[in-house]
Amino acid sequence: MARLVQCVPNFSEGRNKEIVEKIVEEIRIIDEVKLLDYSMDKDHNRSVVTFIGEPEKVIEAAFNATKTAAELIDMKTHRGGHPRMGATDVIPLIPISDITMEECIEYSIQLGKRIGEELGISVFLYEKSAKSKERENLADIRRGQYEGMAEKLKKEEWQPDFGPDILNERAGVTAVGARMPLVAFNVNLATGDVEIAKKIANVVRARTGGFTYCKAIGLEIAERGIVQVSMNMVDYTRTSLFRVFDTIEREAKRYGVNVIGSEIIGLVPMQALVDVADYYLRLENFDSSQILEKRMFE
Amino acid sequence: MARLVQCVPNFSEGRNKEIVEKIVEEIRIIDEVKLLDYSMDKDHNRSVVTFIGEPEKVIEAAFNATKTAAELIDMKTHRGGHPRMGATDVIPLIPISDITMEECIEYSIQLGKRIGEELGISVFLYEKSAKSKERENLADIRRGQYEGMAEKLKKEEWQPDFGPDILNERAGVTAVGARMPLVAFNVNLATGDVEIAKKIANVVRARTGGFTYCKAIGLEIAERGIVQVSMNMVDYTRTSLFRVFDTIEREAKRYGVNVIGSEIIGLVPMQALVDVADYYLRLENFDSSQILEKRMFE
Repeated sequence: MARLVQCVPNFSEGRNKEIVEKIVEEIRIIDEVKLLDYSMDKDHNRSVVTFIGEPEKVIEAAFNATKTAAELIDMKTHRGGHPRMGATDVIPLIPISDITMEECIEYSIQLGKRIGEELGISVFLYEKSAKSKERENLADIRRGQYEGMAEKLKKEEWQPDFGPDILNERAGVTAVGARMPLVAFNVNLATGDVEIAKKIANVVRARTGGFTYCKAIGLEIAERGIVQVSMNMVDYTRTSLFRVFDTIEREAKRYGVNVIGSEIIGLVPMQALVDVADYYLRLENFDSSQILEKRMFE
Repeated sequence: MARLVQCVPNFSEGRNKEIVEKIVEEIRIIDEVKLLDYSMDKDHNRSVVTFIGEPEKVIEAAFNATKTAAELIDMKTHRGGHPRMGATDVIPLIPISDITMEECIEYSIQLGKRIGEELGISVFLYEKSAKSKERENLADIRRGQYEGMAEKLKKEEWQPDFGPDILNERAGVTAVGARMPLVAFNVNLATGDVEIAKKIANVVRARTGGFTYCKAIGLEIAERGIVQVSMNMVDYTRTSLFRVFDTIEREAKRYGVNVIGSEIIGLVPMQALVDVADYYLRLENFDSSQILEKRMFE
């Protein structure tokens, strides 16, 4: 299959449809890139756009959208319920198919450099692209929000990775970085006792000693009279869906509870499911280039 | 993902590379079609070409290749070790992605009609496209081979579906039809006793009371000191890989034998693996349009 990168930029405009459409048009107009979704949030006054394509085309589309956002959005007058620091607030690049994280980091650096140099916007590299531990977490970079950025950029430890060290008052500050795809994965349990879901969430999630790349909470699904371990799998290549599923099933047995089923919410990279099949069938020497569809689009 | 059909035509030339190249070129030349593989067999004096693409383009490529084969191959002088009846011997159309068997049958009828009418070659529709039970099996249609076709076409029960009822002496007869993809699937057992593999093959294969769309034999893998249930899954949508795998594992236990692993040989449609993941994770309401790669190429 083609080398595929997903990009999910967030823009600080969620009320003026005309402006959002003009930004989205920059992505739609590039043939080799596929717009998957975009949504406007009025309360947050923020839009999230999802698109996918070959990496060179994806960063071209992201750059053009950032340029248009800088022209059409004025951060000086922006109000909204979601933390934000720039007209284009954050641009994650996500490896999907036949591309490594290292390559995605390289593309995020190219993109950040262009935004900094050509658009005169201060850029921080974040997540896997971050140059230091302090810049991995978007919340740390964004702390103080747009209103605090003029001061923040004066500090030695917050010199931007690209672009000016003086705030672009109109466009604000943008974070660019590579990260793994999220898979929203829920496992449903045949009990009404939410404490069991919470205990199992405790067992599987990283924060309380479970799997490193799993975030989990236990919650009730009142309309079905059941409970759920609701998860974000933040790196399916290292913490696999099947391993977490099997662990939940085993833990549930300890309480005499059965697993009803699981759900994948939203989009999932093909490889995350192929890994599951590979595991349960105990495939020997399977290579995903054996998948017919991959051959078609390589 | 795009609507995808695979096509695996067999041509009665396996020695003259120049001729085979000219036939293959008709497929390669069409941009929207992807040539996956082709191989020449000298003993059989036969070539097998595999390609994939959108259905309209696939039948265009198949028609052009059939036309060129009719120009370059003379069946009057053809000798070879494999049963054959035409310059283009057989053209299977195989649904891979976002296309139904019914649609593939429709495309095979279009293709057969063009070959019959425009190239003056007698065409039999076979497999799922067959108009009667007697024409489903390619071996029945081909019985008597090229040398017997002039007589066979005179019989009322062997009037062709398209094209002349008098043999085209140069091009012979062609079978066109839709069929499901084959998945070559082997399960390896931790024993040296080939009788156990044979007994389990007996349990899972259609011919001896097993799963309808499973063909199986038991054999020894001498170099590894193990045995194998070697299978052709002829309709993975009705006889699933996971169900056969689980059955083999259970049967092996009856002899105190473990399953070492399994192998998929050659190409496999993505859906066959997604079905496995769906089963073991007990996915609720999963739709393969949630797979990111499918969105890119739809």
